[in-house]
Amino acid sequence: MQCHIISIGNELLIGDTVNTNASWLGRELTEAGFDVSQIYTISDDLEAMTSTLKSALSKADLVITTGGLGPTHDDITKKAVTELFDCKLVVNEEVLNFIKKIFKKRNIPFSESNYHQAEVPDCCEILFNTQGTAPGLWFERDKAILVVLPGVPFEMKRLLKNKVLPKLSERFPQKEFRHSHYITTAGIGESTLSDEIIGDLDPVLNDNVSVAYLPSPQGTRIRISARGHSVEEIEHHIQPVVDFIKKRGGKYIIGEGKDLGLAEVVGDLLRKYELRIATAESCTGGYVANAITNVAGSSDYMQGGIVSYANEVKISQLGVSRQILNKVGAVSKEVALQMAKGVAERLESNIGISTTGIAGPGGGTKEKPVGTVWIGFWSNEQHFALKAHFTNDRLINKERTSAVALEMVRRCILKIKEMPYGLKKQSD
Amino acid sequence: MQCHIISIGNELLIGDTVNTNASWLGRELTEAGFDVSQIYTISDDLEAMTSTLKSALSKADLVITTGGLGPTHDDITKKAVTELFDCKLVVNEEVLNFIKKIFKKRNIPFSESNYHQAEVPDCCEILFNTQGTAPGLWFERDKAILVVLPGVPFEMKRLLKNKVLPKLSERFPQKEFRHSHYITTAGIGESTLSDEIIGDLDPVLNDNVSVAYLPSPQGTRIRISARGHSVEEIEHHIQPVVDFIKKRGGKYIIGEGKDLGLAEVVGDLLRKYELRIATAESCTGGYVANAITNVAGSSDYMQGGIVSYANEVKISQLGVSRQILNKVGAVSKEVALQMAKGVAERLESNIGISTTGIAGPGGGTKEKPVGTVWIGFWSNEQHFALKAHFTNDRLINKERTSAVALEMVRRCILKIKEMPYGLKKQSD
Repeated sequence: MQCHIISIGNELLIGDTVNTNASWLGRELTEAGFDVSQIYTISDDLEAMTSTLKSALSKADLVITTGGLGPTHDDITKKAVTELFDCKLVVNEEVLNFIKKIFKKRNIPFSESNYHQAEVPDCCEILFNTQGTAPGLWFERDKAILVVLPGVPFEMKRLLKNKVLPKLSERFPQKEFRHSHYITTAGIGESTLSDEIIGDLDPVLNDNVSVAYLPSPQGTRIRISARGHSVEEIEHHIQPVVDFIKKRGGKYIIGEGKDLGLAEVVGDLLRKYELRIATAESCTGGYVANAITNVAGSSDYMQGGIVSYANEVKISQLGVSRQILNKVGAVSKEVALQMAKGVAERLESNIGISTTGIAGPGGGTKEKPVGTVWIGFWSNEQHFALKAHFTNDRLINKERTSAVALEMVRRCILKIKEMPYGLKKQSD
Repeated sequence: MQCHIISIGNELLIGDTVNTNASWLGRELTEAGFDVSQIYTISDDLEAMTSTLKSALSKADLVITTGGLGPTHDDITKKAVTELFDCKLVVNEEVLNFIKKIFKKRNIPFSESNYHQAEVPDCCEILFNTQGTAPGLWFERDKAILVVLPGVPFEMKRLLKNKVLPKLSERFPQKEFRHSHYITTAGIGESTLSDEIIGDLDPVLNDNVSVAYLPSPQGTRIRISARGHSVEEIEHHIQPVVDFIKKRGGKYIIGEGKDLGLAEVVGDLLRKYELRIATAESCTGGYVANAITNVAGSSDYMQGGIVSYANEVKISQLGVSRQILNKVGAVSKEVALQMAKGVAERLESNIGISTTGIAGPGGGTKEKPVGTVWIGFWSNEQHFALKAHFTNDRLINKERTSAVALEMVRRCILKIKEMPYGLKKQSD
């Protein structure tokens, strides 16, 4: 089943807003068994809207639009649809009452123009929106289905999950679809992973199976996908490829699953081994603690952290030696080691990790250029620091430092000797 | 000048990757004077590629494609373009030598398939790519220009900035374009801002000027745009609207400029008034410190922070009273106040801010449901806490709490009495 998505809004074209709605929809619809074969991003323009709708409806079984449903004159989706299907707008009492209730609750006077929000085409089914003033609309024409959704992400998402997907699965009960299996790696570059570790996949690949490497600063995901009639059938079909990659990938693989993150994997290990962790951050300024605590339930193992941005805080809150700070500077192996030890001891944790470096864009020297980072580890069993060189970009440096720090913890807990990206352990 | 963008790649359609390339290009090209009127996202499919190219070239003056230039069989952009323009692929020696050099440097054997990367159509100009193996391609056909760029973001961005934009400004020297002026607000809801604070813009608007409200958890930006022949001309033309909005927006306006962020504004104020800040975070787990330190130069005013996730850390590192913790719980006005005071004192800062709440999804009770957050402020002049109710979503709660905390600091420094979203100051 072919699906086209139409995203409406000038803010998407001029780059004021990144089109995250379309990628979210692409994921959900792919999982629901549709082939999302085209996404159109167009302006709030009646002519563009009409011609794109015509084109999409002539090619796809399912067309989903988002945006262009607000009360201002910019929002032209209902007008385009009404003209295209030659029907008319009528006030829907249920929607009208709901809008009036929202306005009353917010204590805003209900103006004439708000009536427009309650107007819906008389040739479609209404998908009631409990989160906002614009309902979703469901049209069936010839063999194609058109679903019109609001552009506000949480309204759109809730309507899709609660109203659209259930109706679609009723409407298209049995069909072939694409399913993907994800294997996530960390602490190794994409090309080293694909060329040296995994190597040539031809011996295990067959026609219907495709493999893609999806790199990010957190690590590289490997996507193995194929088409079939059930998840079980497809998983069975791709099993040899999955097994091959898992065997070759070995210690670099942190787990499987589409949304698997490093912080989640490390968190599960900390919980399993009943370890508590604490962070001492200088150059990352809270990034690592934030990443750890983004995981629900992280209070099971996260003790806390110290963001020691000023050197005085490194001394007073982490017990870093003023003498050493003066002698070798904050961006050094010695300070990274003392920070990791200090935070583990003061916050009574089994593991202490630390970051200290030149995040940039300023502050670099010839000996310590921007992107130089020391990452420290301290536990009862071992303590060491890793020296890395990242980029000139402050935010990328924070992200990469955090990824190395977390992957370092994973490897230490699992007693893997090799450190991320082959970085060498350095201690006293 | 109409511009269409074509983004190529299955990963964009199935939602594995968010299409940030297209929004970046949309911004750059809008600023360079083009009307980006359509973005197509299509699969690595020859037929889709050919028909989309034809359609775009028939409508736009400039078409830019990204992606589909890699060495694997999935990447079909060069094939489609060569067929469409009826020319052939030839090996470019300069590109070939450069690719060989890259492989040598990375110590990877140069295989036959890598020759394909050096093949380019013989009917275009080569835009040499110093960052990767796929060069950009520049075609001129009838009145339209087609630019083919790689999909790797930093390669694409560098080629556009260094090669494509200079050529475009030569090719289209004088033209009318759209320019936007941005005014950023914080601590007020979009509808209250538009309906009650700014109000009806009709008296100052004229035909050519448009105004849009762009809400985000950080605050709402107001975009005022118009078309003209120079930035100066357009700024002069929209001046009455800008002045009107600035006068009405008053204390809710944090500044002007496209990328202005709250952390940057607060940082500038802290620097100006020579104040140092420290953060004590529980539910936000480092988010606030990370936001503050994302700004280059933040070491001028950021002293550091304590992420007191465990209650023991609140007691040992921030001096929160165990008795009070036991009596009223961690999510309370009392603890928020003690955390803010404790971090300011221990980290020797002029201002201490704190967060403690139920981030979710678990941990809520009837009295303190998920989304309940206390945000504390402490300085020599005043101390208080704000109680907010956010959502059921952990990450959104962290983001919103951080935005309120930062806006609270801005308003305190500027002696604005009203707190963000009208939240009431509560002290002992």
